[in-house]
This record gives sequence, structure tokens and C-alpha cells, in this order.
Amino acid sequence: MKVGDHPTAQTHPHGTVLTSAPQDAPVDRATAAARRVIDAMLRTDRGNANLDRVAEELNSIADHLEEHAPEVAERMIDMWSGEGVTRHDPITGPENAIAPPLVLKGLDDGSVQGVVTLTLPYQGPPGCVHGGVSSLILDHVLGVANAWGGKAGMTAQLNVRYHKPTPLFEELTVTGKQISVDGRKIHTVGDIKNAAGEVCVSVEGLFIDASVPRPR
Amino acid sequence: MKVGDHPTAQTHPHGTVLTSAPQDAPVDRATAAARRVIDAMLRTDRGNANLDRVAEELNSIADHLEEHAPEVAERMIDMWSGEGVTRHDPITGPENAIAPPLVLKGLDDGSVQGVVTLTLPYQGPPGCVHGGVSSLILDHVLGVANAWGGKAGMTAQLNVRYHKPTPLFEELTVTGKQISVDGRKIHTVGDIKNAAGEVCVSVEGLFIDASVPRPR
Repeated sequence: MKVGDHPTAQTHPHGTVLTSAPQDAPVDRATAAARRVIDAMLRTDRGNANLDRVAEELNSIADHLEEHAPEVAERMIDMWSGEGVTRHDPITGPENAIAPPLVLKGLDDGSVQGVVTLTLPYQGPPGCVHGGVSSLILDHVLGVANAWGGKAGMTAQLNVRYHKPTPLFEELTVTGKQISVDGRKIHTVGDIKNAAGEVCVSVEGLFIDASVPRPR
Repeated sequence: MKVGDHPTAQTHPHGTVLTSAPQDAPVDRATAAARRVIDAMLRTDRGNANLDRVAEELNSIADHLEEHAPEVAERMIDMWSGEGVTRHDPITGPENAIAPPLVLKGLDDGSVQGVVTLTLPYQGPPGCVHGGVSSLILDHVLGVANAWGGKAGMTAQLNVRYHKPTPLFEELTVTGKQISVDGRKIHTVGDIKNAAGEVCVSVEGLFIDASVPRPR
């Protein structure tokens, strides 16, 4: 993530929203509706939901969206233009139906924090969040923590520890904080706590001050 | 993952498919169509695609699926009944629209392997796979490698190293292999290679022989 004009703990107040919160825009509403479909597809009765018709309707919507899609290279330029936070990432992106989405705020102790409740699409063990989903969320949260800390980079190493199962259907608090910057090396930590405040998953990340060039 | 009757390198031939491959079933077709919608939503023109109408149609489909959904507790019992591989996980599950889905085969050297091409929903840096998505995939692949190795467990620790950016829109080869079992501790490694065969991400995992009880 480019820091650029991105808010940092030095420049912005406690509680600043660091992710792109869902707006009352058609693409955000359509994406939120797609999330409902993903979730309901896992819950619906396999036998009685007229799923062949659902498949037809979804394919027809996909056809429509694709007919109005520019070439990927062109769309990528648009997607990455301007400053500010992305709207398309798979964790916080209001335009990405894979994202829960997680909303993160910057706190005045230098940490970033968000609350999220995960449902069946994110399941690993029965009733629990998939361990890989926890690492996906934490990697991203550490990236946002780095931007809030004032120095962002690319993930070089993640060490994820699983302390206890992370429950679905329960408010989880996700936290990240930049600990130190040593030349190009950035050290950042984070965790996911359950509703009782117990740490379910913790992470230590090493990031390198580097970035992939934007398409243009 | 319960091993139970799960295929292992000792009992099954080279090339055994270890994941639940998509079938010609209505739910699989509907889920595949939902994947198309997720992807096309990120590509479509923000201004011209009549996205308000798309939101209405998707909400109507979600309403229909929810009307035919049993209580979550009941659905969970059904979802976890029987032996064999799950159909709903967020990496290989043909019934989970978040899953690419990845298909994994067991090889006679004890490893498991699959090939996957990831698109915009999985993007992190411009044109690259999100680092957290790589860890999500690898965590799951190590779990399947453990089952193929004959001893599965819960993730206790993942150490993920990022060697170079992992490209979108290119065939990636994902591999996992159980290295040792020491009492309840299971050591497993894996990596993601780009089309040129270079390792983009590697992982070492520690798993503990334990499981979350199935709902009933």
C-alpha cells in the first residue's frame, strides 16, 4: 500500500476510518447483494431451491456485467488511479463480494482495529473460522497498521499462531500495530480476539519497504 | 479434517483427486455462476452497467435462497454429515463461491498438488495475488497434505515467506507435503510457484492432532 496522503497516527485523530467504508453507490449495493447470495447459497436447501433457475439468473447477470466490462488492462488502470484506499481488496473492499467486508479504524495508541462477524463462507472446522481466513485478514490488517504507522511495505514473512478455535457467528475484534521500523524492515503484530476478549490467533509480520508499480 | 476413510498415499494411487471436484449438480452450477458475478462485478464499468437493477436482482435471488434455507444449526449438521471431503470450504469447495476453487491431487511421493489461476477478486498489490490469499490457500493445502499423509490435525502455527510477487492471470502450482509426525505434532511444508516454476510463497506449518467436534 502506498502511504502518500494516507492518514497516519501522526496526522489524523483517534477513530479515523482507514478502510473504504461501503457507500450508498450502486456498485456497493450490488456487491452487498452478491455477498448475501454467496452466504445464502451455502445455507439453502440443496433439493428445493430451484437452483437450476438460480444458476441461469446468475449467469445472465454475469453476462450483463461482462458485456459492460472494459479490457482488464484498462480496468486495472482505473482501479489503481488516484490516492486513498482501495475499494476492491478481498478483506475490506466494498466492491469485492469476497470481502466480509472489514472496516478498520486508526487508534491514537498507533494501532488499527475493526470488528467483524464471519459466517459460513469463511468456515474451516465445524462452526469455526478457517485458519487460512484468519491469516488472510491478519495479513491485510498488518498492512493497514503499517500505513497508519506511517511506513508501509510488502509482506516478507508472516508468523501466525493459532491459540484456540475462532468462532463463526460472533463479534471478533481484529487489531494490528506497527512495532518498529529498522531501515527497510518493518515489524508489525496483530491478533484476532473472540467476544470474550480471548486471543484466538496472533501474528508477527515482517514487511519490506517496497511496492509493485501501479498499472498505467 | 478427519482422516477416517479419506484417501492416503498408502491406500490410493498417484493422481487421486483429494478435493471435491465440481459436479454437474444444480448447486455447483449456481455457485460457479455466483463466482462469475463476483469476478465481473470487479471488472464492469462503474457507470454504465445498470448496477441498481443488478443489486435488485441479486437481492431477489438471495431472498429466494434464504426462504428455502433451514436453520443454520440444522444446515450445519447436514453439511458435516457423512465421511469424505467437504464441499463448502473457502478454497476447494465447489459449493462456496469464495473458493477459486482449487482441485488437489495426491502424488505418490506423498505430496499433494493443484494448479489454479487467480483473478481480480484475489488481488493484493496491482496485478498480484494478495499475500493473505496465498496464506489462505497454503493453510488449506497443508491440511489436505496431512490427510494424504495419513495424519491430520488443527493448524497451530504457520510461517509464511514471500519470495516474490505472485501473479494474477497465470497458472500457479500449489504443493504441500507432510514432512514428519512427532507424537501429536505434525510438520508440513508447501509452496506456490509461478508459471516459470519459481517459488513465490513458501510455508512451514505445525499442526496438532486434534479436531473440533462435528455438529449433531
